[in-house]
Amino acid sequence: MERHVPHFQEELDTLKTRLLAMGGLAEDRVRLAVRALVDRDAPMLDTVLVSDEAINRLHIEIDDRCLKLLALRQPMAIDLRAIVSAVKINTDLERVGDLAVNIAEAAARYLQHPPVKELIDIPRMADLAKDMLRDALDAFVRRDLQLARHVLDRDDALDTLKIHVFRSLLDHMMRAPDTIEPAMDLILISRHLERIGDHATNVAEDVIFLVSARDVRHHQHDLP
Amino acid sequence: MERHVPHFQEELDTLKTRLLAMGGLAEDRVRLAVRALVDRDAPMLDTVLVSDEAINRLHIEIDDRCLKLLALRQPMAIDLRAIVSAVKINTDLERVGDLAVNIAEAAARYLQHPPVKELIDIPRMADLAKDMLRDALDAFVRRDLQLARHVLDRDDALDTLKIHVFRSLLDHMMRAPDTIEPAMDLILISRHLERIGDHATNVAEDVIFLVSARDVRHHQHDLP
Repeated sequence: MERHVPHFQEELDTLKTRLLAMGGLAEDRVRLAVRALVDRDAPMLDTVLVSDEAINRLHIEIDDRCLKLLALRQPMAIDLRAIVSAVKINTDLERVGDLAVNIAEAAARYLQHPPVKELIDIPRMADLAKDMLRDALDAFVRRDLQLARHVLDRDDALDTLKIHVFRSLLDHMMRAPDTIEPAMDLILISRHLERIGDHATNVAEDVIFLVSARDVRHHQHDLP
Repeated sequence: MERHVPHFQEELDTLKTRLLAMGGLAEDRVRLAVRALVDRDAPMLDTVLVSDEAINRLHIEIDDRCLKLLALRQPMAIDLRAIVSAVKINTDLERVGDLAVNIAEAAARYLQHPPVKELIDIPRMADLAKDMLRDALDAFVRRDLQLARHVLDRDDALDTLKIHVFRSLLDHMMRAPDTIEPAMDLILISRHLERIGDHATNVAEDVIFLVSARDVRHHQHDLP
């Protein structure tokens, strides 16, 4: 039987597929954590808290693939930039997985208290952050400049929601000091969601750099 | 006049020097922001808020150096891993610069109110985080495994300080609801400092991976 030696483009495609898989896992965990918070479902939270083994394995595997591609294939120009971008995106996705755990931890504390308020803006923030992340990864895979720019455009909306969550909860805390502890946890969750948006923004900026070889970072779009 | 073409090792050394310079800038900004908070010095805060132009320029320059080294020198083995690590470390340092701005923003809000309490743990957290960051970078430059491990060891101390800050401020908020707003800002500052420690930890993990070619991430030391 002949051993199949994959072509470089095949290996690049596999790398992209693995990054998408990693993004899917990270997104799932964020979705689960926020749904468990809204539904006050402690067992569902536990599934997020228990282990992110799959993400961690994939993180190491992707790093390894990138190093091997750099070492063995010595790619040039856009392929080189794509692989270096993949290393960075891999780090961003791993942090999103960590943030899902942080959200689940704060949610578990939140569930120890009676609900402070109906949760409307936090699920909205979660949806927005997840959409930004998915679009940023799609933009990377398809090298789609327009989609990457669309990710950057939504960062302000996420910021506005975060400020709204903060002000509304500050108001609750002032009026009812017994809500201070759970309100704090909701504020922390909104900040974790904002950071997921930041990671999506990082990925989108990498895509713009990759495709246009122009560095948008530190120009039109200042990081928070 | 003959044009000097630098050797590969010379270019690697320059890369290290530039990373150290970037680390120094990031560390300075954190130090300034926390000192301005403690001294209630609004003009000093402004110097942090005004611009991180120097860090941003260095961030782009270092990324560029790494890509050029990868493209033109096609390094192998430990040199390849060192350059890929430099790309990651560069990202971590840029985020530390962003966190200094976040600290300065929260500090500026904090200064609008009377002091909530004497600040003891927050300057301690800042010192610890800065030391971790500096040691992590030194460990990278000197490929010093032991120093890198010493960085990881201190992450728990930073976490303990953060929990202490949180509990003590929660107590203030419960007893005096008019301290809620400024106390929130101190809690946020302690979390920004914790994240600086996380970035130092990332750098230290990269060093251990680089030197021992063994992946410590997701094993002995779980990220928060």
